[in-house]
Amino acid sequence: MGDYMYYVGVDVGGTSVKLGLFDEVDNIISRVNFKTKTIEYLVDDLVKNIHKLFKNNNLDIKELKGIGIGFPGHVDGETGTVVYSNNLVAHNFPVVKKIQEQINVPIRISNDANVAALGEYTYGKGKDVNNIVFVTLGTGVGGGIIIDGKMLEGKNGAGAEIGHMVISTNGQLCSCGRRGCFETYASASALIRNARVAMCNNPSSKLCKAVKSPEELNGEIFFDVLLKGDKVANVVFENYIEDLAEGLTNLANIFRPDAIILGGGISYRGDVLMEPLQLRLGKMIYGGQWNARVELMISELKNDAGIYGAYAMAKSYLK
Amino acid sequence: MGDYMYYVGVDVGGTSVKLGLFDEVDNIISRVNFKTKTIEYLVDDLVKNIHKLFKNNNLDIKELKGIGIGFPGHVDGETGTVVYSNNLVAHNFPVVKKIQEQINVPIRISNDANVAALGEYTYGKGKDVNNIVFVTLGTGVGGGIIIDGKMLEGKNGAGAEIGHMVISTNGQLCSCGRRGCFETYASASALIRNARVAMCNNPSSKLCKAVKSPEELNGEIFFDVLLKGDKVANVVFENYIEDLAEGLTNLANIFRPDAIILGGGISYRGDVLMEPLQLRLGKMIYGGQWNARVELMISELKNDAGIYGAYAMAKSYLK
Repeated sequence: MGDYMYYVGVDVGGTSVKLGLFDEVDNIISRVNFKTKTIEYLVDDLVKNIHKLFKNNNLDIKELKGIGIGFPGHVDGETGTVVYSNNLVAHNFPVVKKIQEQINVPIRISNDANVAALGEYTYGKGKDVNNIVFVTLGTGVGGGIIIDGKMLEGKNGAGAEIGHMVISTNGQLCSCGRRGCFETYASASALIRNARVAMCNNPSSKLCKAVKSPEELNGEIFFDVLLKGDKVANVVFENYIEDLAEGLTNLANIFRPDAIILGGGISYRGDVLMEPLQLRLGKMIYGGQWNARVELMISELKNDAGIYGAYAMAKSYLK
Repeated sequence: MGDYMYYVGVDVGGTSVKLGLFDEVDNIISRVNFKTKTIEYLVDDLVKNIHKLFKNNNLDIKELKGIGIGFPGHVDGETGTVVYSNNLVAHNFPVVKKIQEQINVPIRISNDANVAALGEYTYGKGKDVNNIVFVTLGTGVGGGIIIDGKMLEGKNGAGAEIGHMVISTNGQLCSCGRRGCFETYASASALIRNARVAMCNNPSSKLCKAVKSPEELNGEIFFDVLLKGDKVANVVFENYIEDLAEGLTNLANIFRPDAIILGGGISYRGDVLMEPLQLRLGKMIYGGQWNARVELMISELKNDAGIYGAYAMAKSYLK
């Protein structure tokens, strides 16, 4: 048996499940990924891959001290239950108990955005501050909130649904049933949806000429056209920035965190996004910035925030 | 010297300052109030009234263990400074240090809504739950958020400004400079302002006939007309409920607290307000209420939430 005990951090995504094997002093030793299937397969696939990780690294499974899991959907960390997950077709599934029937170690699970926020807080851009709001801009808008080192999970783990904060009463219809949710304006999907409408209304624009049909438009092409200079792309992007800044300013006023950290593909575009956002936030935040500046940052761990966060959660939440 | 040590809880309001003398087992022994003046006078008036409280109760000031203060405005609890207060004409005023120059005991200060929330959490409707969002409906919309027994104060104490969450982009102009803030729709002032507009547009309504001029309309008269039955008052009130529910649902999705507790005069109207609000919240909250019901409650401590919270803060934050 080695000198250390080990942890496994698991990031369950819509398309793939990522595992990281960590020693207890924050080093990632090894990784493995597998394809996401429905919840019934997940447990066996996870167990199989954890054994594989240990075997490949000449470690005994007895050296496993705990597992942390970030899960897409509504997850109750207290009971270890997936209350609901659209991606994995799960409803009230006792995932922690099911895994422990095969590997009997302490396991902590939480919503994937909460876990990614904890990762970024502990090992990324948040490591020198107390409180952060982590915002992921993807298909939807996800959020994780860390206050004094702890995830704000809410009752039965249902909290931190910042994408479902209405910023425009009677606005865009959201999948949650309300109108005007932040995520209907600020998600990557919203940007592309709006760009497609604009390009169809402006057939002579560079944006329209860049693709054969609107469906072909993606983030890559959109930002390419935007940076080369196109009026139509510019208007779409400015509207996007306005709406994103509106929601971020709300979060700044509600939490007044040390930092708001953005994750997801769009955030990696850098200055084109961050400069106008920080400017607007500084102007609109309650009391101006005379009192307590909220830093806007881009995620440092990027796609690894999930497994690092899952490890951090296993280490700090399991005793 | 008596068996106990004592605490003083102070609630600084726009018009009066309330003091409560507490023993250390949650009993309020005595109270005294004085008129609010600007910050220069506050320190001396406070010190004088604290001495008076002790003298009137045959106690020695040496038995004072700590003071808690709820203050209207932006207050930094860490440094004991009033960063900005419109009501008391204060800017970067080291209030804790100034009081300690005359009474050298531990003192903790925070924003009045945070402190009232802590009071309601510790001794009122929140005493059996973990997390609450406390929302006061008055001239503005104030908020205090308690997570695992701690006030969410934010960086330099600037957090929990829930009234300055935009729910309607490009909506009503707010005093903070943005448009569409929750407080421009959900404050008591907003209700009366909208009622005045509606009554002027409908001279034959009961609402219009109830007063000689729109300026005379107040909450008392409005609810009187509403409960007796008036179409115009009804429409105004339904719009108010819609907007209030929108903001409360946002807070429910962001925090998923055990309870949202309403304070301020309007909330004491009871069922006429609470029934339609709980109905809307149940329908609109993310995921419906299948996962974690958020209870909507009316403050129990009402106007005493401030002094009880100030006492609770002195007791739990000062060591």
